[in-house]
Amino acid sequence: MARKRLGVQTVRLESPPLIIGSGSVAGPMEAKGPLGHEYDQTYPDLMIGQKSFEKAERVMMQDACKLALKHARIAGNPPEVDYFLAGDLMNQITSSTFSALPLGVPFLGLYGACSTLGESLSVGAMLIDGGYADRVLCATGSHNKASERQYRYPTEYGGQRKPYAQWTVTGAGALVLAAEGSGPRITHLTTGKVIDMGISDPFDQGAAMAPAAIDTIATHLKDTERAVDYYDLIVTGDLARVGQKLAIQLAAEQNLTLGPQYKDCGVLVFDNKRQDVHAGGSGCGCSAIVTCGHLLKEMARGQIRKLLLVTTGALFSPTTFQQGENIPTIAHAVAIEV
Amino acid sequence: MARKRLGVQTVRLESPPLIIGSGSVAGPMEAKGPLGHEYDQTYPDLMIGQKSFEKAERVMMQDACKLALKHARIAGNPPEVDYFLAGDLMNQITSSTFSALPLGVPFLGLYGACSTLGESLSVGAMLIDGGYADRVLCATGSHNKASERQYRYPTEYGGQRKPYAQWTVTGAGALVLAAEGSGPRITHLTTGKVIDMGISDPFDQGAAMAPAAIDTIATHLKDTERAVDYYDLIVTGDLARVGQKLAIQLAAEQNLTLGPQYKDCGVLVFDNKRQDVHAGGSGCGCSAIVTCGHLLKEMARGQIRKLLLVTTGALFSPTTFQQGENIPTIAHAVAIEV
Repeated sequence: MARKRLGVQTVRLESPPLIIGSGSVAGPMEAKGPLGHEYDQTYPDLMIGQKSFEKAERVMMQDACKLALKHARIAGNPPEVDYFLAGDLMNQITSSTFSALPLGVPFLGLYGACSTLGESLSVGAMLIDGGYADRVLCATGSHNKASERQYRYPTEYGGQRKPYAQWTVTGAGALVLAAEGSGPRITHLTTGKVIDMGISDPFDQGAAMAPAAIDTIATHLKDTERAVDYYDLIVTGDLARVGQKLAIQLAAEQNLTLGPQYKDCGVLVFDNKRQDVHAGGSGCGCSAIVTCGHLLKEMARGQIRKLLLVTTGALFSPTTFQQGENIPTIAHAVAIEV
Repeated sequence: MARKRLGVQTVRLESPPLIIGSGSVAGPMEAKGPLGHEYDQTYPDLMIGQKSFEKAERVMMQDACKLALKHARIAGNPPEVDYFLAGDLMNQITSSTFSALPLGVPFLGLYGACSTLGESLSVGAMLIDGGYADRVLCATGSHNKASERQYRYPTEYGGQRKPYAQWTVTGAGALVLAAEGSGPRITHLTTGKVIDMGISDPFDQGAAMAPAAIDTIATHLKDTERAVDYYDLIVTGDLARVGQKLAIQLAAEQNLTLGPQYKDCGVLVFDNKRQDVHAGGSGCGCSAIVTCGHLLKEMARGQIRKLLLVTTGALFSPTTFQQGENIPTIAHAVAIEV
């Protein structure tokens, strides 16, 4: 077995890369949410001075990258990073490719739907630990209106959303990983398998993704021989209220008790009582702003020492849905430790 | 500088991974092309027994994976590979995600448009050389009709194509990389930057991608301190006739003479005289079937010993085009040596 491999799906990083800086930017609704004060930058409207929602999404990713580079004290044009790893929800991940253009550094485009944050941290951590890079910039984001009109209906249509639907977060996050510096370390990665439990309703993504999240969490704990309570916090990407409840049930069936130290970014990002987001938040930006804006700051404040970040993605498209396919899903776990 | 890094964009693999098996499958038009006899499997029609072009594209990728695993003598269900790395041109890379589902191994989705083959080989080679995996399965592919209706017009519309347009290849390729075994080795990787030279016509992709190809080739040669004639063959992904001619001119401006040892998969894949493909082939499947079906076999036959594979990608979407954006492009170089 490859020397850094643990069990079936996990790798252990020999020289755990550090997260030396991060940036988070968020839209107006997210700014009014319970974590609004935590984000590095918020925008007063959804257009962000651009002519389209898609261009606005791109500007958010670029702003998040600038903030992460600034916080990591990385200057230069091009910035002194060896790779830019990014992905998003737009067809052909154009928010990422158009953000890579002004950066001018080697680019690897990723697609993992809302699991992209975990995917980019996984690939980035292996590139640094493996000796291929000193610094890697990872980014992802999403825009509510750009996603709605691409995946579902044009927002002008005003369609009634189902009660278990989620609200795509408008926001972006970026992180700089490095071989040297200071910050929490990425110690283990558990890369997910694609799972299909028969959900075919594109509004029911929390239910679709919950089995993937639990499969990856259970595999991670088995591969690393850790118990749930090893972690101060296990956080899933964007299962929201429906998916989180299901995840707790599915975990219980495997004799895993996910208690108060288990949370979900889709639940944390909005205030369900004050904000009409149905089941909660979703989108690449959801785990990105909660992680970069809040969780990493909690780690810096000493409130969290051991975090298992489990980003979750629904790997469908409107075409596969219209052609009668189910929604395959995936989850990637990243252990971040002070 | 990270210990495996050479120059600004290149890495040198310390224990160069081997390509221990590959598989290539191709559509009916490709089967009638000059390399038709080289492909492992060809299909008599474009539907491949499926109800849609998109489902047909997926079956091709799955068939290519089965062939690559068979040729690499890897059995088991799930197969004994540590990662599946794949990407394609479909929105949300659904050919790859739906191919990952039956495989049941850890999956990292990639998006690099037609540069995906080089991207997947790059990430795969680093995962093996870095000690994270013993075997990695890489795959990509494209389907002419699925691409046409997603990127341009429904094919039933019968629109006149411009003479410099390219013909998206129907086909797929897969490779197994491994730490041990026999086969040619991946020795160096040069990961591209995103480049925009002002081309905005989505039919003129060869011209859009040529500057990225030459930028990556020139950087690779400089980083590795190699001359053009170090390689028996330098092959670009899918510039086709228009882009290849431009690439030779752009190289000359940098004092690089790309002579007879420079070829392009988009030119090699079809017979321009007998087949009405305008400028030539394109699509993720183009470099995939030429590499897996032909070039690796030429290496096994001793006809090529040192190959620089430079896959090229146009990173646009119909949305970015319709919103008035140029076409950003990228190229990734992979040195494969016997």
